[in-house]
Amino acid sequence: MATFTFEGKTVYYERHGESGQPLVVLNGLMMSTTSWKPFVADFSRYNRLVLVDFLDQGRSSRMTQPYGHDVQIRLVDALLDELGWETANIMGLSYGGNIAIQYALAYPRRVRRLILANSGCRTSPWLQKIGDGWNEVAASGSGPAYYLTTIPTIYSTRFFEENAAWMEGREATLTEYFSNPEVLSRLSRLTDSSRPFDVSDRLGEISCPTLILSGSEDGLVPPTEQELLRKGIRGSSHITLNASGHATMYEYPAAFAALVTGFANLGDEGITV
Amino acid sequence: MATFTFEGKTVYYERHGESGQPLVVLNGLMMSTTSWKPFVADFSRYNRLVLVDFLDQGRSSRMTQPYGHDVQIRLVDALLDELGWETANIMGLSYGGNIAIQYALAYPRRVRRLILANSGCRTSPWLQKIGDGWNEVAASGSGPAYYLTTIPTIYSTRFFEENAAWMEGREATLTEYFSNPEVLSRLSRLTDSSRPFDVSDRLGEISCPTLILSGSEDGLVPPTEQELLRKGIRGSSHITLNASGHATMYEYPAAFAALVTGFANLGDEGITV
Amino acid sequence: MATFTFEGKTVYYERHGESGQPLVVLNGLMMSTTSWKPFVADFSRYNRLVLVDFLDQGRSSRMTQPYGHDVQIRLVDALLDELGWETANIMGLSYGGNIAIQYALAYPRRVRRLILANSGCRTSPWLQKIGDGWNEVAASGSGPAYYLTTIPTIYSTRFFEENAAWMEGREATLTEYFSNPEVLSRLSRLTDSSRPFDVSDRLGEISCPTLILSGSEDGLVPPTEQELLRKGIRGSSHITLNASGHATMYEYPAAFAALVTGFANLGDEGITV
Amino acid sequence: MATFTFEGKTVYYERHGESGQPLVVLNGLMMSTTSWKPFVADFSRYNRLVLVDFLDQGRSSRMTQPYGHDVQIRLVDALLDELGWETANIMGLSYGGNIAIQYALAYPRRVRRLILANSGCRTSPWLQKIGDGWNEVAASGSGPAYYLTTIPTIYSTRFFEENAAWMEGREATLTEYFSNPEVLSRLSRLTDSSRPFDVSDRLGEISCPTLILSGSEDGLVPPTEQELLRKGIRGSSHITLNASGHATMYEYPAAFAALVTGFANLGDEGITV
Repeated sequence: MATFTFEGKTVYYERHGESGQPLVVLNGLMMSTTSWKPFVADFSRYNRLVLVDFLDQGRSSRMTQPYGHDVQIRLVDALLDELGWETANIMGLSYGGNIAIQYALAYPRRVRRLILANSGCRTSPWLQKIGDGWNEVAASGSGPAYYLTTIPTIYSTRFFEENAAWMEGREATLTEYFSNPEVLSRLSRLTDSSRPFDVSDRLGEISCPTLILSGSEDGLVPPTEQELLRKGIRGSSHITLNASGHATMYEYPAAFAALVTGFANLGDEGITV
Repeated sequence: MATFTFEGKTVYYERHGESGQPLVVLNGLMMSTTSWKPFVADFSRYNRLVLVDFLDQGRSSRMTQPYGHDVQIRLVDALLDELGWETANIMGLSYGGNIAIQYALAYPRRVRRLILANSGCRTSPWLQKIGDGWNEVAASGSGPAYYLTTIPTIYSTRFFEENAAWMEGREATLTEYFSNPEVLSRLSRLTDSSRPFDVSDRLGEISCPTLILSGSEDGLVPPTEQELLRKGIRGSSHITLNASGHATMYEYPAAFAALVTGFANLGDEGITV
Repeated sequence: MATFTFEGKTVYYERHGESGQPLVVLNGLMMSTTSWKPFVADFSRYNRLVLVDFLDQGRSSRMTQPYGHDVQIRLVDALLDELGWETANIMGLSYGGNIAIQYALAYPRRVRRLILANSGCRTSPWLQKIGDGWNEVAASGSGPAYYLTTIPTIYSTRFFEENAAWMEGREATLTEYFSNPEVLSRLSRLTDSSRPFDVSDRLGEISCPTLILSGSEDGLVPPTEQELLRKGIRGSSHITLNASGHATMYEYPAAFAALVTGFANLGDEGITV
Repeated sequence: MATFTFEGKTVYYERHGESGQPLVVLNGLMMSTTSWKPFVADFSRYNRLVLVDFLDQGRSSRMTQPYGHDVQIRLVDALLDELGWETANIMGLSYGGNIAIQYALAYPRRVRRLILANSGCRTSPWLQKIGDGWNEVAASGSGPAYYLTTIPTIYSTRFFEENAAWMEGREATLTEYFSNPEVLSRLSRLTDSSRPFDVSDRLGEISCPTLILSGSEDGLVPPTEQELLRKGIRGSSHITLNASGHATMYEYPAAFAALVTGFANLGDEGITV
């Protein structure tokens, strides 16, 4: 429940937890700080947790012009300055993972450990086309169409079926939310900001301990793309949640929370067998 | 290049090949007989091949009212009568596989061997919602939006990237094609016809040799759905094409053709080790 | 560094950590408390950790007669009594997972959370035959043969290659260790104790939160066996470590430690999205 | 039912089928021409099939000195000369695949299409150690120990369980067979001949159409090793048989036969979509 000014914009963030390793959580594209509500208690039990809305997300400022990932990367750096944290553990999911990995490349000394959840190292030509589809539907202004073409695809067949009532609630809420043209224009800009992203040839530069978290049925960042991370980042661990789609944090919340908090709290000395 | 009359409608089909085991190929939803052109030479080298357009596909009659899978299943039976074939090997891809498996349940004596490519045994709640999205976009009448929200998702990231020029050609052709409102109304009806499909509790009745063919990154019929087929159909073989999406026949045409023709030409006596 | 008397035998165990959720770690068949040395600091940072040697392991008593899993299950219960712990989080790897799942079935009120690492719900006919092979080689008394036919197979191709020097050290140490006939007779009895194990039809009774941890190339408990656990245990999460064999704790120590400590420290209230 | 003389040794081979594309089948290490008996009818229906025993296999000559893959590769070339075949389709399984891929590298003009079943492009350090274990047990002269440490591991848990009676028959037959010291010395030499094998950096030279066939639970050549082939061989197709171990031809004989015959009979012109 705090804000700071960054390049003339307002950035909204939340602090939870009194002590322990700092943990910064970076949102996926269609998320905001409120999306992490179910995780706050576990993420902050042994950690100083910070949630943050990127520009064009949640309660942070809206943008008016097109932009790229670079402004969000600088925002993360300004956030750490604002908090007075020299280093932090950073977990980013999807879009947030894209920003997280680039932050670790740009500011390697400030990242203690990196967790990349359902996230790749590039926006492949295929994923760009998927994004074009979202924006084409957004341009039509139809909330129902936007919901139906963006949201079901991020869940697994299994989860969707086992959580039918929850999904109906999501559909009602999000369809209304997406029926707001201002929301669709924000999501379109966020989608466009990912267009030229590709750090696949820089993965060897990542030097902090890294955990890669995938869903076996992730329809947006498929296993082959996440495998690129494992092969490129020295010493990384690649974990797959079975029978899970793109939204692993909702499909298996306990496993997700265990991974994030467990990894953030490992000792500095590392483990050598 | 022939037609026959079925329940007052015209059904278009093609015969290729002079001799050998009969092989009937059933189209996926957005396909037609012309989609199989690259495969005709191989499919008909040792087989009597028949391609056919379902109602609302290619050169077969358009429908005017909603319908279900049942009419397409009866169409397959009428086709075998028309050809004078007592039995045939049947390969169906996606929508065609849905019809094929139900045909094998309804007319078990007429199916010698069954090949189910990128096909499940039900339209899961999740897949119904994906179909709702297609139809919502179709209702908007936008060819570009329909292309972008239905086609890229059926290819793997790998294929899309390795065949960039081919995909651009597809986009140009199909965007124009989908800009025809009559085409979109046909595709919407075909999509709707799949809504109540579920034979998951009848798989034990399938008695003919069955080959299940999957893509490891099939975004429409994910591995867990195809695994249901393997576990339910006694003695079936389940093959996965690695680094392939939903359109396995285009992603790995040689492997696809080898599987179909090889399986159709195995001896009646089976193989016992 | 403590012992207690159990059914006339001595059981060796170690306590580490001052406070936090109790965590009991159960060894794989060829392991002992010393095998966990690299993990003690992380396992005990926020937890009261207990390591224990089963009968016929490490510094606990040797057996003279054949026995089954039941005595080891009772041992776990006696250990909790000895510690004065009403409940505990229990993590078991391989053989230890077999005991852990049966302990959770026999004493459901004493298990807060269950972590089953590289562990199945039965000794399949196939796995029994693998065990027969180990015991046949043990009967020959050859330390080198026992090492070569039991140990390499528990590591992935990748790990074996990337850690060549470490593997050479293991080979030297373990070949000498296995050249002791008394060691081979203990390992044979432990192997035999797993023969009639099968709780596949009781998985629905497991009521505590459960995490299943697999290696994608586990040569002893393959993915299909571990999938049985996920499907049978309601609400369980199934995690796969990619490019990992059976010894996941050595192949990816940081990910392993993160999962165990993270899962053990989740709140009692669970996470509802 | 024929032999020819090669470098002073006798090579046994069999011809089946009157016409069609030539198809040469190369055995796995512990196999012989008789192992393919269940497949002869299907392999020769549309093909001129040749089965052959490598040196130290079946009815071909025994060796007395250590040798490498090179002599077996030259044997394949002599076989094609003997048959008067300028080119052939070559399918090799496991050891046979190792020879096949090296034959395609050494004699690229003579290989029309290549099928590599359960086969890698190298004997990894891990696989060498597994072979050391086999040879250590062979040196003990125990038929039962050799059976138990080499054979069960090549089948999947699923197959072993579903075919219990068949496996018992294999155990009886093979245990007796392996109790012959001369057999064990042949198998040890064959195992040793694979030791320095590594063509991983030459995969880009393979120019013929190639099909790679894997088992999802292959305990000897795991998916990651077979993935090397797919990534290295341009235009190759990689197929995985789900719930299958190393002996895919016995686990899924119909699928195996379909793949081999289908791929061997595709047209020269290839398929372009």
